[in-house]
Amino acid sequence: MSFADRHAQALELTAAAGADVLLCADPANVHWLTGLACEIETGPSPFAPGPLVLLSRGEPVRLIVSDDELPATLPEGVATLSYEGFTTGPLDGPRHAQRLVGEALDGRTPVTDQFDGLGPALLDARAVKDALALAELRRALAVADAGQAALRAIGDDAIGASEIELFSIVRGAMEASAGTRVPVLADLVSAPRTASMGGAPSDRLVHDGELILCDLAPRVGGVWGDSCATIAVGEPPAAARAAHARVTQALDRAIDAVRPGVDAAALDRIARGADLDYPHHSGHGIGSSYHEQPRLVPSATGSLREGMVIALEPASYAETFGVRLEHVVRVTADGCEVLSRHRLELS
Amino acid sequence: MSFADRHAQALELTAAAGADVLLCADPANVHWLTGLACEIETGPSPFAPGPLVLLSRGEPVRLIVSDDELPATLPEGVATLSYEGFTTGPLDGPRHAQRLVGEALDGRTPVTDQFDGLGPALLDARAVKDALALAELRRALAVADAGQAALRAIGDDAIGASEIELFSIVRGAMEASAGTRVPVLADLVSAPRTASMGGAPSDRLVHDGELILCDLAPRVGGVWGDSCATIAVGEPPAAARAAHARVTQALDRAIDAVRPGVDAAALDRIARGADLDYPHHSGHGIGSSYHEQPRLVPSATGSLREGMVIALEPASYAETFGVRLEHVVRVTADGCEVLSRHRLELS
Repeated sequence: MSFADRHAQALELTAAAGADVLLCADPANVHWLTGLACEIETGPSPFAPGPLVLLSRGEPVRLIVSDDELPATLPEGVATLSYEGFTTGPLDGPRHAQRLVGEALDGRTPVTDQFDGLGPALLDARAVKDALALAELRRALAVADAGQAALRAIGDDAIGASEIELFSIVRGAMEASAGTRVPVLADLVSAPRTASMGGAPSDRLVHDGELILCDLAPRVGGVWGDSCATIAVGEPPAAARAAHARVTQALDRAIDAVRPGVDAAALDRIARGADLDYPHHSGHGIGSSYHEQPRLVPSATGSLREGMVIALEPASYAETFGVRLEHVVRVTADGCEVLSRHRLELS
Repeated sequence: MSFADRHAQALELTAAAGADVLLCADPANVHWLTGLACEIETGPSPFAPGPLVLLSRGEPVRLIVSDDELPATLPEGVATLSYEGFTTGPLDGPRHAQRLVGEALDGRTPVTDQFDGLGPALLDARAVKDALALAELRRALAVADAGQAALRAIGDDAIGASEIELFSIVRGAMEASAGTRVPVLADLVSAPRTASMGGAPSDRLVHDGELILCDLAPRVGGVWGDSCATIAVGEPPAAARAAHARVTQALDRAIDAVRPGVDAAALDRIARGADLDYPHHSGHGIGSSYHEQPRLVPSATGSLREGMVIALEPASYAETFGVRLEHVVRVTADGCEVLSRHRLELS
C-alpha cells in the first residue's frame, strides 16, 4: 500500500497548509504520487504540457495527462483525466489540460508543489524511502553499476578514444541493462577536466596516464540511480594515487558514520575530515529526483532518518586532476546498507 | 544581425498584443532569442528553474539564468541577470529567479510566450529560418545523417541485436559526430512494432526479414534535426517492398510540390495521394523546437513561405509492418532544397 501511504502524507501536508487541494506539476512528485515516469529527455512537448496531479481528501487522486503519456496501469486510488495530445487537428493540449484542471478544482484554490507552496514539504516526505522506492532504487543503481563496469572494462583501450565515445559505450551498457532508453545525468571527463569537478563528455581524447572521472545518474522507471568512480588509464601520477587513497578513506569514514539521528552537517564534516575541502556537498538523497533530502552540506540542519537513501561522494580536486568516489547507502536501524555495487579502485 | 532581427520581431508582436514587456520561458524561444540551448535531458533542475528571457523596447534583452547555465558568450543586445544555482548553501534558485524577474519587470505586467499569450505568434515568427538558423539546421541534420548511416552500416549484423542495442550504436554515432551529448527524440522499432508508427527502442530482438523504422531528431546546439528511414534486415516481405516504393513516390511528390504559396493542407493532400492514409501529419517545421510551423495536416490553414524548413514524412502502415521516409527541405524562391542527406532505400 505504498501509494496509499504517500497520498495520505500529501493530504496531511495539504491540510496543514490550510488548503483543500494540492496541485503537483514537478515530475518527481508526479512520479512519487502516481508511478508515472513522464517524458523528460526532449524538453517540453509541443503537443501537451506535462502531467499534473491533483489531490483532495475524499476524492481519487487525479492524474491529468495527455493520451500521449497515458500509463498502461495506475496504482489503486489514482484516476486519470486524459485529453488529446498529438493530433492532426489543432494542437490544443494546453487548453485541454487547463480546462480539466479547472473542472477538477471546481472553484477551489490549490496549494501547489512549487518552492513557495508544498515543494519543500513534499521533498521532505519523499526523503524516507518506502519498499517500492527502495526496490526501484536498487534497479536504478544496478543500471548505474552496469555503466561503471562498462567503462572499467574498456581499460587501456580508452587511450585515444574521446570522452563522448567512452560515454556512448557507458550509456549503451546502461540502456542494454535497463532494456530501454534511460535519461542520464552524467559527468564524464578526463584529466585535466577532472580538476573542475565534472562536466559533460566532450570530444577530448584520453591519453595514457590520465584519470577519467565518471559520475552516472540514470533514471530508471522514474527513480534515479547515482554512482561515481575515478579510474586511471595506464599509470597515473603518484599524487593522484595518494588523492584516491584519501578519498577512499573519506568515503569509508562517511559510510561508517551513517546511522539514524546523525546530523547531516556532522556527516558532511566527517566525510571532509581534516584533509579534504571540495566545493560541493558530501552527499544528498536520491529518489524521484536526482538531488533530494537530506543534503550533506555545512549549512544542513536536519538529521538522518532510517529509510533515507543517500549518495555519499567525497572528493579531492588538485590543480591538474580530481578524484571523486560515490556510493549510495540506505540508512538502517543501526547503520547503513551500501546499495551500489560498482568498483572504486583507481586501476 | 540575426538576433537583432529576431528581437525586433518579438518586440513588434509584443506591441501588437498591447504589452510593454514579453517574458519567455519556453526553451525554444529562449534559444531563438539568445542562442542559449538550455539543459533539457534530465528534466527540471533541483537547483534552479530554467532560463527566462525578458524583452522590452529600449532595454537590452535580459537573459535570467542561474550560474549553472550561464553561457560563455551571448549575442549583441543580450545581457544576463544571473543568480546562484547549485551551492552548498540553501538552494534558493527559484526565489532568486523570481526576485530578478520582479526587479526587471518593475511593476509592469508581461505578456508571456504561453499558448494563451504570444506562444502561437512566436511560433509563427520562428517558422521562416534566418541564415543562423539554417546553418544550425544543416549541422543538426548532418548529425541525424550520421545516425542513419550508422544504422545502415550495421546491415545483417542487426539480426539478433535488440532495438536498444541498435539505438546505442546510432546515438553513439550522432554524439561522436556532434562531439558532445545530444538530446534525441527517436523512434527505433522493428517489425511488427513498425506497424504502430514508432516508439522508443526496446529490448525486442530483430529477426531476419524484418523492417526497422528509425526516426531521429537530435538537438544540436539548440536546433533539432529530423530524419526517418525504414530499412530491411535480410529479405523483407514483398508487400513491404511495395509499400516502400509507394512511400518513396509520395515523398518525391511532396518534395516536387514544395514552393512558396502552396497551401500546407494542399501539400498534405499531395503527399497522401490516392493511396496513403497515415494517421499523422505529412510533415512539420523544425527549428528550436522539433515540431514547428507549418504543420502539414488536413486542417492546416496557412501556406508555405520562402525560408521555411520542413520535414516531410509520408508513411504507410499495414497490419504487420510500417514504412516511413523523411527528408527535410528548405523552401526556396521557386521550389526547395533537400537538406538531409541520408539514404532512403529499403536495403
